[in-house]
Amino acid sequence: MLFYSSRALSHLSRPVGLARFLNYRKISNAPQIAEEVAKLLELKAQLNNEDATNGPHKFILKTAKGTRDYPPQQMVIRQKVLDKVVAVFKRHGAEAIDTPVFELKEVLMGKYGEDSKLIYDLKDQGGEMLSLRYDLTVPFARYLAMNKITNIKRYHIAKVYRRDNPSITRGRYREFYQCDFDIAGAYDPMIPDAECVKIVQEILDSLNIGSYIIKLNHRLLLDGMFEACGVPNDKFRSICSAVDKLDKSPWQEVKKEMIEEKGLMEAVADRIGEYVSLSGKSELVEKLLKDEKLSKNKTAVEGLEAMKLVLKYCDLYNTSSNVVFDLSLARGLDYYTGIIYEAVLLGDPAEGSEVSVGSVAGGGRYDNLVGMFDPKKKQVPCVGVSIGIERIFSVIETKLIAAKEKVRTTEVEVYVASAQKNLSEERMKLCNELWKEGFKVEHSYKRNPKLLAQLQYCEEQGIPLVLILGESELERGVVKIREVTSRVETEIERNKLVEELQNRLGQ
Amino acid sequence: MLFYSSRALSHLSRPVGLARFLNYRKISNAPQIAEEVAKLLELKAQLNNEDATNGPHKFILKTAKGTRDYPPQQMVIRQKVLDKVVAVFKRHGAEAIDTPVFELKEVLMGKYGEDSKLIYDLKDQGGEMLSLRYDLTVPFARYLAMNKITNIKRYHIAKVYRRDNPSITRGRYREFYQCDFDIAGAYDPMIPDAECVKIVQEILDSLNIGSYIIKLNHRLLLDGMFEACGVPNDKFRSICSAVDKLDKSPWQEVKKEMIEEKGLMEAVADRIGEYVSLSGKSELVEKLLKDEKLSKNKTAVEGLEAMKLVLKYCDLYNTSSNVVFDLSLARGLDYYTGIIYEAVLLGDPAEGSEVSVGSVAGGGRYDNLVGMFDPKKKQVPCVGVSIGIERIFSVIETKLIAAKEKVRTTEVEVYVASAQKNLSEERMKLCNELWKEGFKVEHSYKRNPKLLAQLQYCEEQGIPLVLILGESELERGVVKIREVTSRVETEIERNKLVEELQNRLGQ
Repeated sequence: MLFYSSRALSHLSRPVGLARFLNYRKISNAPQIAEEVAKLLELKAQLNNEDATNGPHKFILKTAKGTRDYPPQQMVIRQKVLDKVVAVFKRHGAEAIDTPVFELKEVLMGKYGEDSKLIYDLKDQGGEMLSLRYDLTVPFARYLAMNKITNIKRYHIAKVYRRDNPSITRGRYREFYQCDFDIAGAYDPMIPDAECVKIVQEILDSLNIGSYIIKLNHRLLLDGMFEACGVPNDKFRSICSAVDKLDKSPWQEVKKEMIEEKGLMEAVADRIGEYVSLSGKSELVEKLLKDEKLSKNKTAVEGLEAMKLVLKYCDLYNTSSNVVFDLSLARGLDYYTGIIYEAVLLGDPAEGSEVSVGSVAGGGRYDNLVGMFDPKKKQVPCVGVSIGIERIFSVIETKLIAAKEKVRTTEVEVYVASAQKNLSEERMKLCNELWKEGFKVEHSYKRNPKLLAQLQYCEEQGIPLVLILGESELERGVVKIREVTSRVETEIERNKLVEELQNRLGQ
Repeated sequence: MLFYSSRALSHLSRPVGLARFLNYRKISNAPQIAEEVAKLLELKAQLNNEDATNGPHKFILKTAKGTRDYPPQQMVIRQKVLDKVVAVFKRHGAEAIDTPVFELKEVLMGKYGEDSKLIYDLKDQGGEMLSLRYDLTVPFARYLAMNKITNIKRYHIAKVYRRDNPSITRGRYREFYQCDFDIAGAYDPMIPDAECVKIVQEILDSLNIGSYIIKLNHRLLLDGMFEACGVPNDKFRSICSAVDKLDKSPWQEVKKEMIEEKGLMEAVADRIGEYVSLSGKSELVEKLLKDEKLSKNKTAVEGLEAMKLVLKYCDLYNTSSNVVFDLSLARGLDYYTGIIYEAVLLGDPAEGSEVSVGSVAGGGRYDNLVGMFDPKKKQVPCVGVSIGIERIFSVIETKLIAAKEKVRTTEVEVYVASAQKNLSEERMKLCNELWKEGFKVEHSYKRNPKLLAQLQYCEEQGIPLVLILGESELERGVVKIREVTSRVETEIERNKLVEELQNRLGQ
């Protein structure tokens, strides 16, 4: 409600406009305001429709708010990054699935807490009520329940949609890729969980995007700790959301939120404050297992024992050096039930201190989500990780721009040029021969292009070889090969051309 | 209007219900009906919302109408097909782009004629009016105009959305992939156009899905022919739509539509009927250039000259054997301005006559679309082709099922098994070593799985090699390798394992 109202304000030229409007119509209570806002929205929609039918050229030429096109320069980088990510998923035996971009609205409802207001709904056009997917986890759980799948290891790379007011300068959008790996099935504790952490390590190492840490925590430990500190049961989730903000806000602010907004007593908040400042390795687990308050709390001990086991497995999987047990890690989503983790890039030490530049992967265990979709509430335990691929793209893009590295957007190997007029058909014949042999070949779509323009194009595009056709060469049954970077030209017999090209291109 | 009303009827238990309802409310005119329908829709939406909040488990567990999930078995086939298609695009020097899944509603309006009613709109949530993309061509034109790009050769593979009532049994859905290749730029006649035809040939040949023909025609020839036959100017597009149905309906039905629905005189329809029954190669072009009526029509002659040129280029590109000049080819979309083409699979001759089993690629020239988005109406001539990838997927799937070919959904090379209890940590260590070396490796997520279950899993999954850990082997520093198909087991020293696996897997 609050969300709609605040957005509706922006439709009027100045905020004061709404007040005047409401005054004029003598409206004062909230439901009436909501009703009037709805009327305004309807009028606005009608105006939009009229605009579109009367003057098709009046609209501003743009993509929808918070979205963007991906030009070839970006697509190349994205494809390379995704290839590396998929290689890791496949190395761990994952299968691919895909789901529709929209789901029945009911599938998404009650899964995202406060963030549900950010879901894009489709217009009711006389069919089902549909919404664009908000993440890949809920559709995955729906897929498992619907197909009665009790174990699978799958990855899914697709776009998701959040009607957020994103800070686009920080690389956040309303349409963005997610890149998820999940293991579903009833298995022994922490074995799949530790493999998810391993996968994060392998991906971040293979992308070579700088140093990072993977923070680990456990929902049971958080719950036990809240209980031990005296947080009322019904406030666990909201206090957890507050703790989640510690990666962006200092403790004093989070504490204020806990007391003023969430109604926690200051003494309780202070107790939480002491715990969430802790981070370490397995020695911290041991210390906490002896902690006066936590050792008496069954839930906390269960969480700590799980942490102990996962840290042992991290030793076996050689991820310990990247892993930190961090009690301030909470993760916002409601559906986590066990271990949670988040990978954070560290700033370049050469440029100053090692400050966090943001999360690039995160996930955890969610054992109760699939059951929400099953008519008999049958559970399928799951653990997974989502790679923050958009942030990784922008880190890599920034690096490439800084290094002034030029990225080729095509893979053309050979360009067929003509030195004189009226050779376009000869060019076409030669291209046809080379395509047949599997070479990546282009020529000009003009009948009589200038030779200089053709050569310039090859240099700009980074095409390695040019074949230059001329009348005298055609008569003599030869063709001129030019190496673009060195500009060295050689003549070769036409019937030896394919072999020569294969050699030069190292095929 | 008609569309909404007819759908709205379905909300009531029986069609007669609406009539009663309207009668009760004493409503008779169209705007009032529309208003009442809108109210009904709103009530229905509220009901849906209440359903969802009160009983989260009452909804049917399904994907949205006309959509489906892609399970791993399908994803593998899809990926292989797409890889082959992309290889052809890249061989011709294409770059990749991507655009958002939704566009401003205005971008799509006025581009699809009658089919505009099939566009999915997003709900007005207080922002812009948005619609899901209906194809990839209009977003491409918007991209060119917005970025002032005057030449590019790009491909785009993405899902598009049509609120059709699809015949799912025939492989048609509301969400489906398109796979487009387009050449934008002002070039010499038919050179890029002939390359698009070449690309269709290369793709269909590489996929090995049986024999096919590529039908060619020209919009100017169609227009000139309509004019020469006496079709009034304002009926060109609607008569063109009727001709477009000739691939599915016999001439007598199409003729009936022309006369009864489109108001054409029978004599005119008969004249069209004679032309659209013609198909052939370049000799047909020559014949028509001498045709009494067509030779006097400037537009028709222009179209025929263009056909002559493109058929000459098809000779140079070796596509002539697959190409047929077919005067009945019309293509539905409004935006085509020049050559049009469509590839049609022919049935298996062994199973009967060579009957068409449907279009698998289509496209043409659209020189005026980009200008619709440019404030100064600046045109960028374009020609392109869309591969009917969904139909191709289902043809290939059907073939694989018929051949009882089992498709692997993972790429796992090595499975690490244990022969006794309490070896899970040893398995994890070995997996970790092998992942580091780049092998694709899995092991059981259970601490103490049964050996038989592990071996069975490998056979089902088609994993070629199993490493079996046992206490005695661990003590002796060896590991047992089992070849899954032959079940032959050999012992190898642990420090020679990586080399042995590389040899066996042919790396």
